[in-house]
Amino acid sequence: MTDDSSEISKKEKILLAASKLFLEKDFKTVSTQEIASKAGVAKGTVFHHYENKHLLALAVLDVFVNQMVSDFDKMKETTEPKEIIIGMIHYSMDLVTNSTGLTQLLFQVIGDIDHLTKEPENEVEKQIQNEVRKVENLLVGFINEFAIIFKRMGFENPIAYSRIFIGVLDGLGLQFALNPKPDTKLMEELTTTMIALFTKR
Amino acid sequence: MTDDSSEISKKEKILLAASKLFLEKDFKTVSTQEIASKAGVAKGTVFHHYENKHLLALAVLDVFVNQMVSDFDKMKETTEPKEIIIGMIHYSMDLVTNSTGLTQLLFQVIGDIDHLTKEPENEVEKQIQNEVRKVENLLVGFINEFAIIFKRMGFENPIAYSRIFIGVLDGLGLQFALNPKPDTKLMEELTTTMIALFTKR
Repeated sequence: MTDDSSEISKKEKILLAASKLFLEKDFKTVSTQEIASKAGVAKGTVFHHYENKHLLALAVLDVFVNQMVSDFDKMKETTEPKEIIIGMIHYSMDLVTNSTGLTQLLFQVIGDIDHLTKEPENEVEKQIQNEVRKVENLLVGFINEFAIIFKRMGFENPIAYSRIFIGVLDGLGLQFALNPKPDTKLMEELTTTMIALFTKR
Repeated sequence: MTDDSSEISKKEKILLAASKLFLEKDFKTVSTQEIASKAGVAKGTVFHHYENKHLLALAVLDVFVNQMVSDFDKMKETTEPKEIIIGMIHYSMDLVTNSTGLTQLLFQVIGDIDHLTKEPENEVEKQIQNEVRKVENLLVGFINEFAIIFKRMGFENPIAYSRIFIGVLDGLGLQFALNPKPDTKLMEELTTTMIALFTKR
């Protein structure tokens, strides 16, 4: 931590501005100048903290992934397994409806599977690899957590159930990343149908 | 068609060799020389037909997407909706188990969502955009087809059911693209659980 407090605050402002812009728009259409203007800093200050737009996007994604982990930890505080499943369904549906830009960013990074198997050649590739591993661990973590939850609910094949449950959430995320802005009625039907499928034996 | 028959045959040999290699290995680890050797042609011949490895990979993916469409058309020939659903589950499980390289390639291209919104700058970007649109249309097509099938089976909210069903198949594809080589017991449990979820009201 070599930054003084005002520098940290500028870095946070840049990250917050970038999050908002990447959430509203596609990655390629957001310029560094736009991020700087929204954060109220000079363009050079953006480059001082983040060497390029890719590294900034990865920082945004990282905040988002950390947020998901901490939101899930809160969700787990309820002791009723059925409520955790319903909570996760509502959380995911909210995410795909209101954070299209971020889910698009997520799929773009996940899609970069190559980066898992080759030596990173520069800082961006190194960060992508770290983030893909982090998302992969998150996915495996969710599968294990929900396997325990489905087991507690007395479902047969709880691991298969958990993989299918997490698979649906990812698959719907992908559908709405490709075709954003689903209508409210469809989202309600999806939520009701998923709750019926995954809380009743 | 300016190619003579022996040129067409060489092009086909290259495509077949590339398909096998991309299926077995990660995209980045397959060299053009390796493709040429497997196809039994000179390296220059590969570049004559496909300007670079990316365009060849897209051609491989295109063959794969066309194959999926034609396989699904065959599946639909049976009149029993339940059998079509079971057929699709088996088909997808077989795909994620035995064609990891291709599903990885698919997610890499889908992940490139940027390419839908910006003007392509070169031939590779143009081909990626075409392929993402084709995959997106395939996804929408499947959702519509299975909505009709779930409706015929008397399910409530057939569109939601169809989106969830296609979502599971994509989501599981993503899980096994990130972590290939699932064991046989898990695949059997997934198949059984999915059949129970999507064929019983």
